[in-house]
Amino acid sequence: MSAIAASARGMTPADLDAADPLAFARERFAIPEGVIYLDGNSLGALPRATAARLADVIAAEWGEDLITSWNKHDWIGAPARVGAKIAPLIGAAADEVIVADSVSVNLFKLLAGALQLRPGRRVILSEPSSFPTDLYMAQGLASMGAAELRLASDIPAALAAGRDGRQGKDVAVVLLSHVHYKSAAVHDMAAITAAAHAAGALMLWDLSHSVGALPLDLAGAGADMAVGCGYKYLNGGPGAPAFAYLARRHQAAFASPLSGWMGHAAPFAFNDAYAPAPGIARLLCGTPPILSLAALEVGVDLIAELGVDRLAAKSRALSDLFLAAVADIPGLVLASPTGVRGSHLAFRHPQAYAICQALIARGVIGDFRDPDILRFGFAPAYLRFADVAAAAAMLAEIVATGAWDRPEFHARQAVT
Amino acid sequence: MSAIAASARGMTPADLDAADPLAFARERFAIPEGVIYLDGNSLGALPRATAARLADVIAAEWGEDLITSWNKHDWIGAPARVGAKIAPLIGAAADEVIVADSVSVNLFKLLAGALQLRPGRRVILSEPSSFPTDLYMAQGLASMGAAELRLASDIPAALAAGRDGRQGKDVAVVLLSHVHYKSAAVHDMAAITAAAHAAGALMLWDLSHSVGALPLDLAGAGADMAVGCGYKYLNGGPGAPAFAYLARRHQAAFASPLSGWMGHAAPFAFNDAYAPAPGIARLLCGTPPILSLAALEVGVDLIAELGVDRLAAKSRALSDLFLAAVADIPGLVLASPTGVRGSHLAFRHPQAYAICQALIARGVIGDFRDPDILRFGFAPAYLRFADVAAAAAMLAEIVATGAWDRPEFHARQAVT
Repeated sequence: MSAIAASARGMTPADLDAADPLAFARERFAIPEGVIYLDGNSLGALPRATAARLADVIAAEWGEDLITSWNKHDWIGAPARVGAKIAPLIGAAADEVIVADSVSVNLFKLLAGALQLRPGRRVILSEPSSFPTDLYMAQGLASMGAAELRLASDIPAALAAGRDGRQGKDVAVVLLSHVHYKSAAVHDMAAITAAAHAAGALMLWDLSHSVGALPLDLAGAGADMAVGCGYKYLNGGPGAPAFAYLARRHQAAFASPLSGWMGHAAPFAFNDAYAPAPGIARLLCGTPPILSLAALEVGVDLIAELGVDRLAAKSRALSDLFLAAVADIPGLVLASPTGVRGSHLAFRHPQAYAICQALIARGVIGDFRDPDILRFGFAPAYLRFADVAAAAAMLAEIVATGAWDRPEFHARQAVT
Repeated sequence: MSAIAASARGMTPADLDAADPLAFARERFAIPEGVIYLDGNSLGALPRATAARLADVIAAEWGEDLITSWNKHDWIGAPARVGAKIAPLIGAAADEVIVADSVSVNLFKLLAGALQLRPGRRVILSEPSSFPTDLYMAQGLASMGAAELRLASDIPAALAAGRDGRQGKDVAVVLLSHVHYKSAAVHDMAAITAAAHAAGALMLWDLSHSVGALPLDLAGAGADMAVGCGYKYLNGGPGAPAFAYLARRHQAAFASPLSGWMGHAAPFAFNDAYAPAPGIARLLCGTPPILSLAALEVGVDLIAELGVDRLAAKSRALSDLFLAAVADIPGLVLASPTGVRGSHLAFRHPQAYAICQALIARGVIGDFRDPDILRFGFAPAYLRFADVAAAAAMLAEIVATGAWDRPEFHARQAVT
């Protein structure tokens, strides 16, 4: 909060950088010259340590020790080891988190397991305009006849209403993103978890836009389940494996329908019958992707070292600075809360797509989200206050001069 | 077959290496000094090109171009691009194969999709002692009430019997490994696929122990679906992503219950409702693991360059040489076919575990499979005939001298 206070006292961006206790961290990342990277909420930047670590995993572990690395370099333990390192970032115990698969696949496991833990209830309650894969995975589960997806904008009200007048008694599990991927709006984790529990439902949080950016307390909120992304604020690399959290109290009764051999109690006994591993390991499915896991571990180690509280405070100060600097840009409308929010900001503008491309052409990398959202992330580990001020000035100039209105800035890319 | 014929004419291992048209390929791999690696069927060796490729993906693509790499370096196209390169190795068309997730997860997608393509049928027919994860994933699907797993040792007979006297009319899909992971026994792909079809069932082949080692013709056999492993003969690295094959004729009607955003028709439209991509891309689920995919691509490119026919012929010659050399070892009983088989050999021995460890201590890396199986792989891309002869001699010496009978060779490791 000191940086915010300083900003309020009228310090320049350079002053703020000079006073920033996290300023040293930028050197721990490989940030290209001339780029102001405001998309760490989509793909985190490269930690400098990652290249050397991967080179070692490839040459020394895979190349030299080959298959024996599963034991010798504890490849087999990597999903639980990295999960245990993520645990303190999200307010969980070490044995409640494991790294596996993707966010999407982990959602399927947890949603299916939640339905099985709440027999007689078949509703997955979520909200419209959630991150699409969350809804799609619930729809996939529903397509198997196992569930029904219900969307409601007011989750506590939907829980209280219930189909037969009693508190949402058909809801097995509530699935919500803690921080919204577009707006950065934040749900009150403790309050909604309590509402879910009051209705007899389980609570599953998607922490993809929270983990590594905001302090989180799953245990304090009493949350049952969570998933999160490895490639955003954890800087684990493109398509990094995801993590899953399952509160210890549910583990013994939990059954994943994706019951692959790595979640077996004795994977190398090669029995015909599945028997789940005793704890969080039952959330594993196939063979873990060791190269991607090694990269994720570097990112997690770095974020843990920097500390989520410091990171969250700096991110807030960065985004407050940006917000103040773009307040007068014509046509730009804030689509994020001014109060509690995640680490990014969203703005509406009729020319959002072309403006985003024009910014990228100038080295300011944000992203666009349909239909008219400009999204800027303020990953605090590697951004300077001066970067944010410069990006805001560039945005103002592009809008003021109409520099976005060139054919190449309107051409849609495969990935926006 | 020329190498086999040469072997029959009494050439020495050195002669065979001198005459080997694939001898050059060993230099394309990083094989440690003093190691004879007979476990490429479990984890393929490291292609020398992989380290440089990964360094480039990390530093230049992720590090320099950051999020723009999804377009600029076609990360978004990697699953389909690498799938298209695997396609000719398995007798498929380029648009029938995609790289995604793990073998286990892909099995779930395809089995669930197969059941949905065969309404009114709920049986997954497989055989006992299949690779465990194949059976476990079918059990997981069955646990959702969507299916029933039936095991039969004689698949054609089970298909012909049927529960009501007609040809297996309750069987939706037959799931078999083409090459058995322990014995290396090979199923007749065309004959069993035809039997499945005659019973109105779909055929799903697990090619994990076949792809890159044997010529395969999914199209010729009329196979409907397949999965395969990236980290064995394709040398994609530990836990490399897997692939899935779905015959073009089934794609439009196929629905994956793991309906993640990357399988959506318009992933970046961020709609609330799932709509599958038109073709094979509907088998994607979460964000693809780009680092692991890049490593897999190097391995696939290399195997494609070397050619499966040549590789298969050399592998057969290597394993025939080994078989002849160990024929007189007391207590060692062949557990693989002498005729048609995959690229590895299995032997039973009461002291298999300790013998395996004693071999590893001498630099001969094979593996052990419960309860008493010694398994040796003959990955032809990097093994020399001289290696195989030396390994056989080492095995003979260890058994003859009882050198396996030391406490450290009996201590079980986490991964066997």
